[in-house]
Amino acid sequence: MSQLLDNVCSELQRLPGVGRRTALRLAMHILKMEPQCADSLSSSITRFRHDIRYCMSCNNLSDSDICPICSDMRRDRSTICVVEQVQDLMSIENTGQYRGLYHVLGGVISPMQGIGPSDLKIELLADKLLTGEVKEVIIAISTSVEGETTLFYLLNRLKSFPDVKISTIARGIGFGDELEYVDELTITHALRNRREVER
Amino acid sequence: MSQLLDNVCSELQRLPGVGRRTALRLAMHILKMEPQCADSLSSSITRFRHDIRYCMSCNNLSDSDICPICSDMRRDRSTICVVEQVQDLMSIENTGQYRGLYHVLGGVISPMQGIGPSDLKIELLADKLLTGEVKEVIIAISTSVEGETTLFYLLNRLKSFPDVKISTIARGIGFGDELEYVDELTITHALRNRREVER
Repeated sequence: MSQLLDNVCSELQRLPGVGRRTALRLAMHILKMEPQCADSLSSSITRFRHDIRYCMSCNNLSDSDICPICSDMRRDRSTICVVEQVQDLMSIENTGQYRGLYHVLGGVISPMQGIGPSDLKIELLADKLLTGEVKEVIIAISTSVEGETTLFYLLNRLKSFPDVKISTIARGIGFGDELEYVDELTITHALRNRREVER
Repeated sequence: MSQLLDNVCSELQRLPGVGRRTALRLAMHILKMEPQCADSLSSSITRFRHDIRYCMSCNNLSDSDICPICSDMRRDRSTICVVEQVQDLMSIENTGQYRGLYHVLGGVISPMQGIGPSDLKIELLADKLLTGEVKEVIIAISTSVEGETTLFYLLNRLKSFPDVKISTIARGIGFGDELEYVDELTITHALRNRREVER
């Protein structure tokens, strides 16, 4: 087999979800691309990896020291939504419904994976609360064991800011979810947090 | 959103089977890679796209003018297996059972996609038969309408070499396939081509 093909396939196989067969399919696709398209694919990877930065204020991915969200003065600076990772921030941004700021923890506490509180950007969040500008912190992290541990830690850490309201996003049955396939814990939660219908 | 992230995501989305969400997941994975790993991924893409060549003898992908298979003198030069694409050649090579040479057509005749006989390496195959060294041509192309059209064209084109035996690979039920899920055409074929069991 061609060394060049062999190389590109092994490199592509480092990506998640890409096995031998998929790598080969991707390589054959790259072969059919215009050379300049293949170049811009590879240079976008290099530039992304080398030049991307983390926002010094919220830990979001950014091209500069402060991300576009943190530097947008039209956003509500009194509300901070805490998320695990950048993808979660994007999901919330895509709704177009949230106008506050974010704070990306960079993961959740997981003793199994050796991730402790000091590995997350928790102190950076606490620092932001010191200014007194923030009125509410919305915690939007997953309900896994690790997520709950992180929530518990955060609540404890933020005790020193009694004036800041802390909330978690609502848990319940998703729109379009079929009750038949929803797990018991979610249903229990959804039942407990039922809302009266206005008539 | 960060321009760098936006760029790498749009570039990754050019790859087959990669949507917005997958592109983002790949980008986040690239971010976690060592910088030199990201560099070797991107340089392998560029080098592959620019430096790969097609074997002048069989149209296989190659680092040089003649591919390792064609230049391997231990291989049986009297048999040529005709395949649609490089992936098919690899699948056959992986069995370790075939010791002849190959010929990669580079596709199948498809009027719908504007691919005619002249777009395939059919004349290159005919040229090879002129030497008289080849005794058998095994046609291993798919049984789609396009594949059958290509087979018909090939049989017609190779009429001028009456001494060359032409065969197609056997069609039947694959090992591990459940009869329940096999299509009717394959079952019909498999029944017609049944073999008596030696007792």
